[in-house]
Amino acid sequence: MPTTHPGPEPRPLAAGTALDALETPCLLLDEARLRANVAGMRAHLTRLGVAFRPHLKTAKSLDVARIAMTTPEGPAMVSTLREAESFAEGGVRDMIYGVGIAPAKLDRVAAIRARGADLAVILDSVAQADAVAAHARSSGDSVPVLIEVDADGHRSGVAPTDTATLVAIGQRLTAGHATLRGVLLHAGDSYAIQHDPTALTAAAEAECRAAIMAAEALRAAGLSCPVVSVGSTPTARYARDLAGITEVRAGVFMFGDLFQAGVGSVAVEDIALSVLATVIGHQPAKGWIITDAGWMALSRDRGTARQAVDQGYGVVCDLAGRPYRDLIVADANQEHGIVALRRGAEAALPDLPIGSRLRILPNHACATGAQHDRYHVLDAQGRVGAVWPRINGW
Amino acid sequence: MPTTHPGPEPRPLAAGTALDALETPCLLLDEARLRANVAGMRAHLTRLGVAFRPHLKTAKSLDVARIAMTTPEGPAMVSTLREAESFAEGGVRDMIYGVGIAPAKLDRVAAIRARGADLAVILDSVAQADAVAAHARSSGDSVPVLIEVDADGHRSGVAPTDTATLVAIGQRLTAGHATLRGVLLHAGDSYAIQHDPTALTAAAEAECRAAIMAAEALRAAGLSCPVVSVGSTPTARYARDLAGITEVRAGVFMFGDLFQAGVGSVAVEDIALSVLATVIGHQPAKGWIITDAGWMALSRDRGTARQAVDQGYGVVCDLAGRPYRDLIVADANQEHGIVALRRGAEAALPDLPIGSRLRILPNHACATGAQHDRYHVLDAQGRVGAVWPRINGW
Repeated sequence: MPTTHPGPEPRPLAAGTALDALETPCLLLDEARLRANVAGMRAHLTRLGVAFRPHLKTAKSLDVARIAMTTPEGPAMVSTLREAESFAEGGVRDMIYGVGIAPAKLDRVAAIRARGADLAVILDSVAQADAVAAHARSSGDSVPVLIEVDADGHRSGVAPTDTATLVAIGQRLTAGHATLRGVLLHAGDSYAIQHDPTALTAAAEAECRAAIMAAEALRAAGLSCPVVSVGSTPTARYARDLAGITEVRAGVFMFGDLFQAGVGSVAVEDIALSVLATVIGHQPAKGWIITDAGWMALSRDRGTARQAVDQGYGVVCDLAGRPYRDLIVADANQEHGIVALRRGAEAALPDLPIGSRLRILPNHACATGAQHDRYHVLDAQGRVGAVWPRINGW
Repeated sequence: MPTTHPGPEPRPLAAGTALDALETPCLLLDEARLRANVAGMRAHLTRLGVAFRPHLKTAKSLDVARIAMTTPEGPAMVSTLREAESFAEGGVRDMIYGVGIAPAKLDRVAAIRARGADLAVILDSVAQADAVAAHARSSGDSVPVLIEVDADGHRSGVAPTDTATLVAIGQRLTAGHATLRGVLLHAGDSYAIQHDPTALTAAAEAECRAAIMAAEALRAAGLSCPVVSVGSTPTARYARDLAGITEVRAGVFMFGDLFQAGVGSVAVEDIALSVLATVIGHQPAKGWIITDAGWMALSRDRGTARQAVDQGYGVVCDLAGRPYRDLIVADANQEHGIVALRRGAEAALPDLPIGSRLRILPNHACATGAQHDRYHVLDAQGRVGAVWPRINGW
């Protein structure tokens, strides 16, 4: 049952295309900022003596992966099996699929592993461990497993104090010919902290303590736990001591976004991702400038609404990426962005005639990126030096 | 500069595939509900004696377009030029591009028109009219234009009382060899009404009054205004008298969603779109069931948060599409949905072991659809009878 009517492909671009010549809306990626963000995280983690496993769920791009990973073969973290398949095809060998495994996905995991990639899975229940063990027994492939441990009550994971469950999972896995590779945590609640380095460092320390407690529980039961994996952009950035941790994961820091800037884990001037838009109308009585970048191009993410500074649907910049003072995307419809000054702003609305081009910094790089199928990659001259595809879907 | 590493295509499906065999998360479309929703709107508008121009921004699918349109050639409304190109290639001849035209997009409009499609544009300023007129003069193609009129202060458009601007736009267009085809309005503020048929009918009447006022202003100045186009799903549904109106547009009603159910313009049991998910974990102490359909599959849309009934990230149903009592997606991360009972619910959490499959009804069909590249189309037996691609991007 092939899909029908795929529709025409967008026209190819010439290298060195100026931003004025791009169709809007579209996604821009500043390669120099991306590289600087990666270099900063790598240097920080090298100082702390720990391996870095970049999370590729934000970028979903082999080109970005090759910049972010410490070797062309990994390590890397993925959020979908489609990413794992694409990256494996691109030569990545060391991956963890970071979403609790469903038994029905094990055949697809096995197929990726059979092509030579060391893809590990995560889980947090005896039921999943039994399914993985049974699959390993029948397939003969001793799939490596990390037990997901709950760092902070954010989402999934076994409580680090629940020794009985941790050990039961480890024993079922090893008895069933799967491989217990270690424990994995994600301190997602660190996202709720805002500009409080002490609290962010404390969140990183709590994540590490929970990880080490779980690893020690497994080891005390005679189970091996070679990998102790933690991470989130805020806790990676604010970790001060990672003794007992073998690797750190982080992803959104590569691009940065306004939400992470609100947390204090990236700087606005380091944000590498933006959406190019065109002015298509004005409502002067309301102080509105209408653009062609609505929520379809920016995403529906309103994460900054919960922070001290609500950035609407994004911060409005000129073509060089410099923010206009107090100018945000105040509201959005599907294909319309409503640009306006923040409430109480002292700045005047800039004069932006029909056809003017703007760049919008995103609230959430993962969500904004997902609305697009490619990056227009800016070179040092601010021109489009390359187009990198994204690996969307599952 | 070709794009690199497009990644492997998902594997094709056999016709008649059961829902248990699909990879999750993925998008399901109930064809019988879609056809019934279209038939209902058509019958309603036929009774009112007005033409129907379906808005294809929700579906972005030629297969759905062919069900929704009154003829294989249209009429239709599109939200991107990529939709216009794909539908033109599929034989659609009568289209309006429903986002205020940017001058830089006129070459692409002309190219679509040169291939035989009657594609019209909309605008709401003299500056745009001058750009369109200049393009028409130099290209020799008298591109048809509708003036966007502001029905309710929602977004774009000339005020219907602003006769001077309406007439100036009309005169600049006709003097410059473009074609003034009419006026177009969208009563977007009707979305803020909830279960108030009197208010919804009043919004429809106000939209019509504004349309007719603008059309009469043009005609009084000696300009032609053959098309008077109005529409939104709520006002289309609640219109009682459309004298003076030539066509009605609506789109989201085809699929329906929880937000429109909150407005009162569709019924929950008529919602044709859902996301198929798999249970991947439990946090019993918190009353959480974790699924693999996070905001990447559901979208970040939280439109129902502003309504009387907050549906979280969606209503949870069984495989047959029957809602579990009081069960919603209470929160979502990128690839994790957190399913829980509504606050204060009396129902018990259903027993849904690891691997169980669920269907999630979306808050906003346009946004949820956009997270996917295809529909898995359910036949009368609840099996996948076809796969229809979506036309995402710009």
